[in-house]
Formats: sequence, structure tokens, C-alpha cells
Amino acid sequence: MAKTAQKHRETKPTPPPSDAAARDDTDITALDLPPAPLTPAMEAYFARCEEKLGFVPNVLKAYAFDMAKLEAFVTMYNDLMLAPSGLSKLEREMIAVAVSSVNRCYYCLVAHGAAVRTLSEDPVLGELMAMNFRAARLSPRERAMLDFAVKLTAEPWTIEEADREALRQVGFSARDIWDIAAVAGFFNMSNRVASATDMRPNPVYHGQAR
Amino acid sequence: MAKTAQKHRETKPTPPPSDAAARDDTDITALDLPPAPLTPAMEAYFARCEEKLGFVPNVLKAYAFDMAKLEAFVTMYNDLMLAPSGLSKLEREMIAVAVSSVNRCYYCLVAHGAAVRTLSEDPVLGELMAMNFRAARLSPRERAMLDFAVKLTAEPWTIEEADREALRQVGFSARDIWDIAAVAGFFNMSNRVASATDMRPNPVYHGQAR
Amino acid sequence: MAKTAQKHRETKPTPPPSDAAARDDTDITALDLPPAPLTPAMEAYFARCEEKLGFVPNVLKAYAFDMAKLEAFVTMYNDLMLAPSGLSKLEREMIAVAVSSVNRCYYCLVAHGAAVRTLSEDPVLGELMAMNFRAARLSPRERAMLDFAVKLTAEPWTIEEADREALRQVGFSARDIWDIAAVAGFFNMSNRVASATDMRPNPVYHGQAR
Amino acid sequence: MAKTAQKHRETKPTPPPSDAAARDDTDITALDLPPAPLTPAMEAYFARCEEKLGFVPNVLKAYAFDMAKLEAFVTMYNDLMLAPSGLSKLEREMIAVAVSSVNRCYYCLVAHGAAVRTLSEDPVLGELMAMNFRAARLSPRERAMLDFAVKLTAEPWTIEEADREALRQVGFSARDIWDIAAVAGFFNMSNRVASATDMRPNPVYHGQAR
Amino acid sequence: MAKTAQKHRETKPTPPPSDAAARDDTDITALDLPPAPLTPAMEAYFARCEEKLGFVPNVLKAYAFDMAKLEAFVTMYNDLMLAPSGLSKLEREMIAVAVSSVNRCYYCLVAHGAAVRTLSEDPVLGELMAMNFRAARLSPRERAMLDFAVKLTAEPWTIEEADREALRQVGFSARDIWDIAAVAGFFNMSNRVASATDMRPNPVYHGQAR
Amino acid sequence: MAKTAQKHRETKPTPPPSDAAARDDTDITALDLPPAPLTPAMEAYFARCEEKLGFVPNVLKAYAFDMAKLEAFVTMYNDLMLAPSGLSKLEREMIAVAVSSVNRCYYCLVAHGAAVRTLSEDPVLGELMAMNFRAARLSPRERAMLDFAVKLTAEPWTIEEADREALRQVGFSARDIWDIAAVAGFFNMSNRVASATDMRPNPVYHGQAR
Repeated sequence: MAKTAQKHRETKPTPPPSDAAARDDTDITALDLPPAPLTPAMEAYFARCEEKLGFVPNVLKAYAFDMAKLEAFVTMYNDLMLAPSGLSKLEREMIAVAVSSVNRCYYCLVAHGAAVRTLSEDPVLGELMAMNFRAARLSPRERAMLDFAVKLTAEPWTIEEADREALRQVGFSARDIWDIAAVAGFFNMSNRVASATDMRPNPVYHGQAR
Repeated sequence: MAKTAQKHRETKPTPPPSDAAARDDTDITALDLPPAPLTPAMEAYFARCEEKLGFVPNVLKAYAFDMAKLEAFVTMYNDLMLAPSGLSKLEREMIAVAVSSVNRCYYCLVAHGAAVRTLSEDPVLGELMAMNFRAARLSPRERAMLDFAVKLTAEPWTIEEADREALRQVGFSARDIWDIAAVAGFFNMSNRVASATDMRPNPVYHGQAR
Repeated sequence: MAKTAQKHRETKPTPPPSDAAARDDTDITALDLPPAPLTPAMEAYFARCEEKLGFVPNVLKAYAFDMAKLEAFVTMYNDLMLAPSGLSKLEREMIAVAVSSVNRCYYCLVAHGAAVRTLSEDPVLGELMAMNFRAARLSPRERAMLDFAVKLTAEPWTIEEADREALRQVGFSARDIWDIAAVAGFFNMSNRVASATDMRPNPVYHGQAR
Repeated sequence: MAKTAQKHRETKPTPPPSDAAARDDTDITALDLPPAPLTPAMEAYFARCEEKLGFVPNVLKAYAFDMAKLEAFVTMYNDLMLAPSGLSKLEREMIAVAVSSVNRCYYCLVAHGAAVRTLSEDPVLGELMAMNFRAARLSPRERAMLDFAVKLTAEPWTIEEADREALRQVGFSARDIWDIAAVAGFFNMSNRVASATDMRPNPVYHGQAR
Repeated sequence: MAKTAQKHRETKPTPPPSDAAARDDTDITALDLPPAPLTPAMEAYFARCEEKLGFVPNVLKAYAFDMAKLEAFVTMYNDLMLAPSGLSKLEREMIAVAVSSVNRCYYCLVAHGAAVRTLSEDPVLGELMAMNFRAARLSPRERAMLDFAVKLTAEPWTIEEADREALRQVGFSARDIWDIAAVAGFFNMSNRVASATDMRPNPVYHGQAR
Repeated sequence: MAKTAQKHRETKPTPPPSDAAARDDTDITALDLPPAPLTPAMEAYFARCEEKLGFVPNVLKAYAFDMAKLEAFVTMYNDLMLAPSGLSKLEREMIAVAVSSVNRCYYCLVAHGAAVRTLSEDPVLGELMAMNFRAARLSPRERAMLDFAVKLTAEPWTIEEADREALRQVGFSARDIWDIAAVAGFFNMSNRVASATDMRPNPVYHGQAR
């Protein structure tokens, strides 16, 4: 694909000045951090990814230079995004993408945009979360949730009791508010690790659930 | 698609408070502006769209309440995006999407993101332009062009001779600089007309050239 | 005027480093784009400008390197600013200046500031639009119109149904809302073409209707 | 003038909702603060204003509710703007207007814009300072001075040694740097007092030195 | 302390409108989330906190409504802030405070400001990190590290190879760059969880190492 | 203190590139402006500072290169911060610190943070003003006062009658509103003079009233 595409670019992309130029297409980040041997738990987890998704998400490979960091990331991620919660898995992914849109994080927009498309079976919803959540036709609950997550991302110092009250008004519990904050917070972390290291998403995400 | 999708949304989207709720899926903007009879020129143009694209882009239908406005828009658009220029058609579409990303314009990101994917035969390039052009692997020429267009979009008052000089350094002529400015300017207009009217893109764009 | 002025500047302005230095006072933009022969329509239009205004606005001379671009610009401009509309000509010029103030566009603030002064016979109103429209004593209709245009300029992605509703509340029709958006959009384009090319207004504007 | 102007406004400006509506044209601020008896020093100073300028600037009348405040303001103002300095009076007024442009202060843009026009005998220079100083043809000394003042206004926390060094490079002394900072600082104060109180400039400024 | 203080406040603080008013001084967040029974591992960890610090940091009590979340947080925190790294513990705390200053997070500025004061034995350094790191006298290594962390916090989408290269130039390895990114990312998460929940720091931090 | 602290910094702070490196610890600003002989009034004032505070605040020494400037500053400062007013001295210091927090002014946050701690006998209140006033438990009067002062600092052009009305609603008089504006304005000036000159606070402030 990349090769055919190039012939349509009138100007030949010349390599950028830095070591990014030396990276071939399989590099996952701009940092040269060779993978450590997987612990048995992580080996099993990677195998499960291959089985369920057909691939290991690049973010996991990026963390795999250090097993303590990989395991801490996987544990927190799975608790936040997959454990029981008053928020559905789709709602959590919608927060992930709306937050990543504020931060313009290429990795997370691609990977979690695909998750929104897949979980909702609505390809347009994924695009809307990535481009401008305000343009989406949302329920009051969804809108309040995303308004809070996006404000918390852009201007965290302005969140006050009135913002939490707006969530309670549409039915969110104290625990739900924690979960909204924790998911939004987590992607504010991940967006920055990805941007700091120029992390590249697995190409397979692009075509999923279109 | 929309119907199946809803069953995966834990909360039923309730209609938004205003007249947006009354719009059915075929409404193109939030403004009730009935179409005027097409002039022969515009009738021919719409027919050509149907023939070449398989559909009439919604932006044209949105302008069709007034033939003078539609013809002025079509004339300027076609001159800017399709007439001979030192910028390739793909380069002009790349500017369109990078500018629309700064302005988070849903209509233009969808419609012109599809154009970048189609013209480049590189689906990933379209995503990169919409999400964060800085993450793309670009030639110095492409990068300088987009840096100028994006700065002109975000902080037009800071453009000075040094910015034009950076374009000349990578080979752009005076006429090319005009064209970069004119395309970036045009989408700063279109993004605002689309956002002001809640213009919705033709759904067919979403699946194109993925 | 320029000559006497210099003796009052304690430091002699030295030429800026780039080719701007080589521009004499009659240059209109920083781009060397020689004028094309005027089409008969444009020759007539320029003649009408000379007759009615006493001069040809520099923006027209700037576009005159390419007749297709000049005609497209003139057609769209005249439709937006002069054709029948629910907005008065003065209201359209007020939008032009308030938008240009957000974008700090020297050309448009000078040329359209003069238009507001002339059309309103109120020199102070022109200054207020250019400096801070919030300080002006406006009718609710004027204020709503400018609030919408300025928000659409500064943060177009935040415009939603409530913003359109605020316009309807003061009596604007769907068509009026389109016109507000289209005029605001047009000056977001023109501001950027002017800033990108360092377009200079005709000096005559400065003294008009003071 | 105001009366004729109104007939050209298609919509009758209705009074704003608050007590601003009750203010007649001679009110100077939105705060009801009756003037205190002038001290002999201030009486003499006001007389000198009448004699030299033909009027007492409204900012002085605004402070005249309290003689201690008026005298403190006058003393600091006259030292900064009129006392001997490595900066010319025109340079100090240029800083005043460029700072007031960042803060979009109607009072100061009008009053000090007139001062730049008068001192420079260059009406265009006053407009440029108020609209976008980057569009002015300035000497390196003037440009460095305004770059520092404007950065200090917009993002004071980012000023570092390199910014002071840029001033030294074009010949400013330690004392000159102090004066640039002090004038920029003073107008950051005055802009805010004027905006907080809706201070209105004497109408006579508008026509001066055009 | 609070009681005596009140007598010096001329106005009696009346309770804020919402349930914040009902919180007594021992509440840790605005969310009513009763603590779960501590797991043996967390019981031991809390005991170690009491022993080493004399108290359990409130952030741990805030997470203690759910043992899975508490353990995930503690594991990630301890790996990032205490495990071997090319960054000293003080450097990691300096990043924590500089990031929290951008986000104006009261909890983290108090708790990690105390950590900087304690680890550096330099009370002023803690203040500088919280107020404006640019005012601190830093080594080039420290400055580059904080410039990267602060840019990554404020505008993560603008981080590019040149930013990583600036870190390499002052001697940071690929692993060090990861650690800078990961610590900055982590506090971008924690700042938001704290702000979203109105988390209050243990009062004891305020007097530490002054 | 500085010396012991250094041994805990893993990297030796090397001198910054510019003349800041040549400044020893007793320098007060980055500008070499030798003190002028004190006038009798200023000599008495400095003596009173020594007597009451135990030291002369560095800001006074910074202005002491020119007696006219020092006296103007002292006169205005003392009128604003110490003369009779509807605002208590503590309230005026709270404004000073909240404004300085927006502007991230190291000098003023340190010096006036100490004043808030001392006047309120509440060390936590000083921290809250410096870090994020929105996190403080404030009376409606205090909150309205700081909301106005902070908005006036960050976006002075947006202050309108509704903002003044919010102050009147909690009981502030016209004179009080002037004083809020004047104190906020004054610190917007002082913050910029301090940042422009890299003014350093007396170290003694750091430990006061903790």
C-alpha cells in the first residue's frame, strides 16, 4: 500500500532529519528499547491478544522493554476498561477517544477509534468521537459524561462541584464519577506516553469496523 | 446501520432539546432552507457529480437554496481545488484536511479525509491529516506547506516574511504561496459555514478508500 | 506624510531583513505576481470602483494576477455583502470588522472599518468594532449577531444548536443565520489571504468618515 | 453625530439590561463615584490639561473621586511617560498601544492611539499599533522593544534572560529595559482598571491627527 | 488553626451551595465512596506508610474503596517514582511538581512540593517548581527535562523528534526519555483524578521541610 | 541552605549561558542598576520596614535606582494595600496572590503568599491562593471578588456589566469594585515588572507563618 501510494505523491518524501529516518516500518516507537523476556503472565497475555484480536497491540510491545512497567500498565488498563463498572465498555471507549481528540494523539485515536466502531457497530460514532464529539447525536447521559471528561482534559483546574453535580443530574453515581475521571485521567497519561515516544498503532486498526 | 448500533448503546439517546430533534436523517443542515430550482448550469453540475462520484455532495445541496450563492461557491471551489496549480490536487486536499483538523470541522474532515485517502491511495495518510499532521512522515515540502497552512489557521496575525521565506526555501513560487494561502483560507471559510449550520456529510464518504 | 513622520522617529527604521525591504510603497502584497490583462467584465468593474470610490481597492489588484480568481472573489464578495439579505449592509460590515479584529487582520480592519464609519455615519462605531465590540452600545439583535460571528471565528467547533437558537430569539430567520455564518466565514478566508500575503490597504481608507 | 448615525442602523439599539442603560453620554465609568474636591495641585494639573490639550482626559476624572488615588496615578504616569528616559515619548506611546491591543482595551487604544498619531505625525502608525504591530514597518530597535512588551503582556511567565538579551543586542541599556518593562506593566494595570469600570474615552480623541 | 484563622476573615465563609458544604474536615474527596476492607498487601503497605511517613497519604485512602484500583495505582506509582532509573528520585519529583503546576492541581502541588523540599533539602526549590520552574536556577539537564515534561503536558501533540533530540543532547538515554515521559504522563493522570474528585492533601505536608 | 541542597542534586547546576551566571546570591534583579541615594522620606520608609518587618523588601531595593520611581511605587502601593477600603487587608492580599498565580510571578507569589498566611493566620489559605483559588473554601463574597480579579487578569476584554453586577449582588459597593479592579490591576503591573527583571524575593518570606 505504502509503495503504490508514493507514486501519487508529486514530491518524494525525503527522510526527516533525525533518527526517525532510520526507523523501518516495523518500529513501534522512536526510542530504541529492546524487549525484555516476557514473564509467564505476560507471555500468556500476549497469546490471548493474538487469539482474540489477531495481534498484539503495539502499546504492549512498547512497554515490553521492562516487565514491571508492562504488568503495571496492563493491570491498570484492564481494571479501568474491562472490569465491572456503571459505565459500559463502549462509554469508556468513547471517553478514551474524546480525550485523545483534545490531545490529538495519533496512536490512541486510531486504536480506540476502532474500539468505538467495533463496540457500537456504528462506524460513524467512532469518527465523531475522534473529530468533534459535540457534533454527535448523544443522549444527555453520554453528553454530560463527555463534557466532563473533555473539560477535565483541557482545563482540569476549573472542575468544581457544579461539574460533578451535572453528572449526578443525569444519573451517575459517585462510583461512576470516579470511573469517568479515572478513564479520562488514564488516557491523558497514555496520550502523553504515546506522543512523547512517537508510538505507531498497528496498521490493522485502520480498516476495522468501517 | 444506525438501528443495530442503538442496541449496543446502554443508554437510549434521547432527542436533543431543540429543533435538531425534529430533523430526520436526510436533513443536511440545522437550517430550514428549501432548495431553489437549479439553474441549467447547476443542473448539469449536479448530474456530473452523480456520474463521477455517484452522489451530490451535501455541501452543494446546502447551498442550493440560492443559485447565486451555489454558483459562487462552486466556481471558487473548482478554481482552487481543481484548476492548474503548482500544488497537486492531493496537496490541496492535504491542506484542506489539516486546516479542518485545527477547526475540528466534522463535515470537512469526513469529506476531504476521503479525498486524501482516494487521491493518495494511502488510507493512513488521510487519518494522519485529520488527527495530527505532525505525526505523518512528510517530505520537507509537504511539511513546510502544512506548517504554513496550520499557523495561518490558528494564529493568522503572526504570519510574517520569515514564514513565506520558509516556503520559498523548499521551492514554492510566489504563485504557489498564494495557492497555499487561498486553499487554507477557503477551508477556514467552509469549516465555519459547516459548523454554523451543523452540516452533515454524505454517509458514503466514511467507507471510501479505507 | 511618511517623510515628515520619519523625522519624529528617534531611530531610523532600517529595512527588514527579507525581500519586504525591496518593496516600494506601491507594492500591494509581499508576493511578486504581475497583473494579468483584465477581462472586459473586470475592466468594467474596476472602472466602476474608480467612479464610485475614487480608487480600486488593493485586494482586487492583489487578485488580478489571475482573472478566474479575481472574478470568483468579486462574485462571492458582491453576493455576500451587497445582494438583498435580512442583514443590512452595515450589519454585514460590522460582522466583517468584528471577525477581522479577532484575527487582527490589518488590511480588513482598515478597509472595512472605513465602511462601518461611512455606512453608519458614526466614526466611533467603526473604532469599537475594530477594538472590542463588547464595549459598544448595541441592540440585542446586533449583539447576538456579533457574539455568534466572533465565537464562530475563535472556536468554530463549539457552535451548537443553542447558539443558533440565541439568534432566532432576537428575530433572525434561517436565511439570516446562513448570511451571518457566510459573512463571518468569508472574512475568516479574506483575513488569512491578506495576512499570508502581507496585503496593504489603500492609504485613502485611513481618513474616511472620521 | 450620534443622532444622525442612529437613523442608519436598521435596528434600534435598545438599552442594555443593567444600569449602563441609565448612563447618559457624559458618564465616564459604570461606577457611580462622585468627584471629590480637587486638591490645589490637582486643580492646577487639570487646568494645565485644559490649556495644553483643550480638555481633561476622562481617566483623570475617573480617578478624581479620591485625591490620594488621583495623585498617585498622575505622579506615576508622568514619571513613566514624560520624564527623561532612553526611550522617546513616541516609543513609550507605541508600547502603550501595542500592550492595549493585546488586552483589547477600548479606552487606552483610543487615547494612546491618538498620542502615537500626534507624536509621529504618522496616522497610519497609530492604526498599526492598535491593530497588529507585526504588520508595521519597524526598525529592529522598535520591533525588539514591542516584541518584549507584547510577550511580557501575554505570557509574562515565559520572559527569561534570552528576552532581555535580545533587547541588549539592539542597544537598549539596563535602564531602558526597566523602562520598557515599567511602561508595559503600567498599561497592563491601566487597561484592567479601564475595562473593569467600562471607562469611556473623550470623544475628541477619535478625530485627532488623522 | 482553622478556627483562629476565621476570626481574621472579615467575611464569614458561608457554606458553598452543594454537598461540599456537608463535608467535614476529614473528608478526602467530594465523592462518597466508603473504604473497602484492605487486602493483606495493602494493609502492610499502609502500615509501612504510617511507619516511614507518620501518616497514610490521602490519595491512597481515596483509592481504597476498591482494592483492585488501589493496588494498580500503588504498583504503578512505586515503579515510576521509586524503582531504579536514570532519573534521581528528586528529578522525578521535580517533574511531578512542574507538571502539576501547569495543571494547577492543589493535591499534587502540596504533596509533591513537600517531596521536592525534603529530597533536595532546599525549600526554595519546591516553591520554584510549584510557581514557575523557569525562574529556578537549573542545570541544562534539569532544564531540558522540565521543558520536555511541561511541553508534553501543555501541548502533547507538538512533541516531535527535535524535542527528544534536545534530551539526548544533555545526556539522557532512550530509557531516561521513557521515564521522563512516563512520570509526566502519570501526573497528568493523577492531577485529573485529584481535580475531578476535589481530593484534599494531608495537612501535615504544608509544614514539611520549610 | 543553598550549599547543602546542592549535594542532593545529582547533576551539578551549571551556570546559565547569559549574565545571570555572573549574579551572586545578593543580586535582586537581572538588571545592573546601582542604587541612588535615598531621599529622606525613603530613608525613613526603609527604616520603618527594617523595624516592622526586619528587612527591606527586595522590590523596594529594585526600584531604588531612581527616587522618583521608588516614591511613586511606594505611594501607590501603600494607598492601595493599606489605606482604608471596604476590602480588608487580607482580601487585598488574596487578590494579589490569585492574580500573581495567573501570571505565575515568582516574586509576588512568594512575598504576598507570606502576607496571606500572616494576615489570615491560616497557612493553607496562602497555598490555595497561590496554587488554585478555586480549590479554597471561600465565602460567596470572597469567591465573587476573586472570580472578578482573575477574569480581569486573564481576559480583561470580556469584563462587562454582568461581571460588575455579580459583585454588587454579594454586597460590594461602587468604591469596592474600584478597589478590586485597582488591586488586580496593580499586581498585573508588578507581576510584569518582576518577571521582566527576574526579581528575586527576600529568602525570609519562605518560612513565614507556615
